[in-house]
Amino acid sequence: MTVPPSPLVTDLYQLTMAQGYWQTGVGLREVCFDTFFRSNPFGGGYTVVAGLEEALEFLENLRFFKDELRYLESLDLFTSEFLEHLEGLRFTGDVHAMAEGTVAFAHEPVVRVTGRLEECQLVESALLNVINFQSLVATKACRVCLEAGEDNVMEFGLRRAQGVDGALTAARAAYIGGCSSTSNLHAGRRYSIPVRGAHAHSWVMAFEDELTSFRRFVEIYGSRSVLLVDTYDTLASGVPNAIRVARELAEQGLGLEGIRIDSGDMALLSREARRMLDEAGFEDVEIVCSGDLDEYAIRTLRAEGACIDSYGVGTHLVTARDEPALPGVYKLAAVRTGDGSWTGRIKLTDDPGKATLPGLKQVWRLVGPENEMVADWMDLEGEEPDTTSGVLGCHLSNLARMELIKGVRSVEPMLKPVMREGKVVADLPPLERIRARVRSEVMQLPEAVRKLVKPRQHTVLAGPRLLEEARALRARM
Amino acid sequence: MTVPPSPLVTDLYQLTMAQGYWQTGVGLREVCFDTFFRSNPFGGGYTVVAGLEEALEFLENLRFFKDELRYLESLDLFTSEFLEHLEGLRFTGDVHAMAEGTVAFAHEPVVRVTGRLEECQLVESALLNVINFQSLVATKACRVCLEAGEDNVMEFGLRRAQGVDGALTAARAAYIGGCSSTSNLHAGRRYSIPVRGAHAHSWVMAFEDELTSFRRFVEIYGSRSVLLVDTYDTLASGVPNAIRVARELAEQGLGLEGIRIDSGDMALLSREARRMLDEAGFEDVEIVCSGDLDEYAIRTLRAEGACIDSYGVGTHLVTARDEPALPGVYKLAAVRTGDGSWTGRIKLTDDPGKATLPGLKQVWRLVGPENEMVADWMDLEGEEPDTTSGVLGCHLSNLARMELIKGVRSVEPMLKPVMREGKVVADLPPLERIRARVRSEVMQLPEAVRKLVKPRQHTVLAGPRLLEEARALRARM
Repeated sequence: MTVPPSPLVTDLYQLTMAQGYWQTGVGLREVCFDTFFRSNPFGGGYTVVAGLEEALEFLENLRFFKDELRYLESLDLFTSEFLEHLEGLRFTGDVHAMAEGTVAFAHEPVVRVTGRLEECQLVESALLNVINFQSLVATKACRVCLEAGEDNVMEFGLRRAQGVDGALTAARAAYIGGCSSTSNLHAGRRYSIPVRGAHAHSWVMAFEDELTSFRRFVEIYGSRSVLLVDTYDTLASGVPNAIRVARELAEQGLGLEGIRIDSGDMALLSREARRMLDEAGFEDVEIVCSGDLDEYAIRTLRAEGACIDSYGVGTHLVTARDEPALPGVYKLAAVRTGDGSWTGRIKLTDDPGKATLPGLKQVWRLVGPENEMVADWMDLEGEEPDTTSGVLGCHLSNLARMELIKGVRSVEPMLKPVMREGKVVADLPPLERIRARVRSEVMQLPEAVRKLVKPRQHTVLAGPRLLEEARALRARM
Repeated sequence: MTVPPSPLVTDLYQLTMAQGYWQTGVGLREVCFDTFFRSNPFGGGYTVVAGLEEALEFLENLRFFKDELRYLESLDLFTSEFLEHLEGLRFTGDVHAMAEGTVAFAHEPVVRVTGRLEECQLVESALLNVINFQSLVATKACRVCLEAGEDNVMEFGLRRAQGVDGALTAARAAYIGGCSSTSNLHAGRRYSIPVRGAHAHSWVMAFEDELTSFRRFVEIYGSRSVLLVDTYDTLASGVPNAIRVARELAEQGLGLEGIRIDSGDMALLSREARRMLDEAGFEDVEIVCSGDLDEYAIRTLRAEGACIDSYGVGTHLVTARDEPALPGVYKLAAVRTGDGSWTGRIKLTDDPGKATLPGLKQVWRLVGPENEMVADWMDLEGEEPDTTSGVLGCHLSNLARMELIKGVRSVEPMLKPVMREGKVVADLPPLERIRARVRSEVMQLPEAVRKLVKPRQHTVLAGPRLLEEARALRARM
């Protein structure tokens, strides 16, 4: 687990509010908060949800210990009665969430938290921190891996990641998103992710010449050797030396695993290297490329006919360089009234992009006859899409546009109970299963939604009861 | 400490190389690695060095424990003899470094590591991870704080940071760079950084109306209250209600600390709010603004006459949004020969931006009569700038351009011994001192180098012996 379960992983104002809620009695009121993304990252058509396991671990272990309470006391903001109350406080609420690896769309609740206001408010910052970053990197990895097609993408970002744990968390999310391995041993061990890596330029420079350095390397690693061929001159020296070493290995009945190119015109160099390797009879020797790669660079390389079997992707992946923060938010959606029913809350704003949707909601995925995602449909909990006469709703992106969706083969509620009264109640799947889910979900997306540049935004409809609730609330305010 | 001292915080290839170095005997050779940045981030003229304390803690605690060795064994890449060797391995080298909070320039070594090749190679990934990220955020914070002038900048980024530890580390670096506080309690406690924060929109929405919510808040926090005034309508409702509450506080002999605006046209709203507060006699009530701010937004707000006393800066700061990775590298610069002298190493490359400088080097800061930084001068260790007849060198950015710098009042070697034979030998200053150093160093920079947009690149000269070494090496290769 990467989150130290310290309840101090929160913003100060959550605690000043918690004390206020407690003192005024408001804190016991039951509420519902939605975690959602206001837009999909990287100009894309979807977001891969990740980080749930860590978020649930945080909630389940939320507890203030003596030394944390002493720190809070030192701030001279909290009464001793409140600190005593905090000592006994646990997260006792319920959580409904989309499974890790699910594809979600803008404005859909991905984690729905219900419980006492004081508890739900307190956990906002940590929940957002974990869900935002992991979903961001999982989505980035998914985009990169889709461009790489059947080829492998290896995560190489440790040295440029945002801190040691930034690297660890990013490696997990990158694997979920589709990467085949990481270079980061810490992450490999913690999450059982396959690790990959061979040698750097410094290895070659540590010996008298390149050929000697290659020979020394394969003496140790045999057929698991990947030789870095661009230290001096890729085509004039690196590849010929690698071929020479491959021949020497062949004499022992061994094969060379691959060569790696880390600089230069990779399309050209990889094509030439492939030709040279093939002519020498080494069709099985793989070509690995690395160096400032992202999904666009990989698309360009493939368009240029590059002969690359594996891509090493670092900085762009682990920092999500072109959009390094996912604007996920956590907003009050409903309050429970005396009779046990939920009444919606809404934030009025001039900015339609910042409007929120009221009520205890469920998101339904509508799947068509070819197993393709047709649309998502959101309505109040308890409502179900009518697949016989057609699913009726208004487009979230344009509420004036009503649509009746027919030909839906199956529907599935996306928010499943994962925590009840503070205890995890769902099976948390292993990473491999989450990773497989991402690939299958993305393949269910309409191609126009999945594409890299200017995708169509997926149809997300608001159902009649939800629209009614929103309208009534707006009218009242 | 944020780094778990696991030696597995490294890329797999560091260990495959380490085994190779060990088996071939090359690993015992004494070498020198330089950590440097190839360019200053954010298009700026300088980089604030940070992360040294954490890096040294990593080095001092480097040690493979049984369970880590078992993991390595499971990879089926390492011999039992090598794993036994690893068990006894410690970092026993020397480190010279620029102090945390020092201003550095492109291509200057900021951390110089000397020792056995196998040890120095092994620590590359963790060193770069820590130094890159903290220097990046410290530099960003410095830029933001310079634009804010005498006003406070509060770090508010937890929910958008790259993981829990990304937030923790970012809070430390942001404080070093000049921020006055953080909202992150975990960071506040760990690093004794002042914490700030009051309440969110959800507080206002939890009560029947805004005025009631403000009254409940000041009942608890009295003169330490900062009221968020933009939940409904900043000027028509929020500010008048805050003034009403300020009057009620005044009757008890208390003052309101401030109001916070989190949306809208902050220049306009803050000016109007200031006018309304002043007219009501509340000149002392501070105005805090937050929401998508960075150094450019703050500059614009000030140019528009905004009346803001404190800025809350989140996402842009903790993710260094416009350039989320610092391309710091760690390169072999010299190898020790049999007679104990150092012989330089250089990486030949077609890309002049990627060229490295050979030898065991020292960076000297040349300071002029007004205490301003005149230039930096780099030469081999043992060489000293000649301040009587003038300091001679060639511009790093253009080696054909020679310069003789006169009128230097004082010179200082920037790389100081911080670790000897694996033990920290320098006093690691408290954060407050590091923070003060940043401010004073930045003020020593020529204004043209310090400025936000299109700064002049500071003069960094290579001295005669260094140039000679580089020329000789290039000729030999």
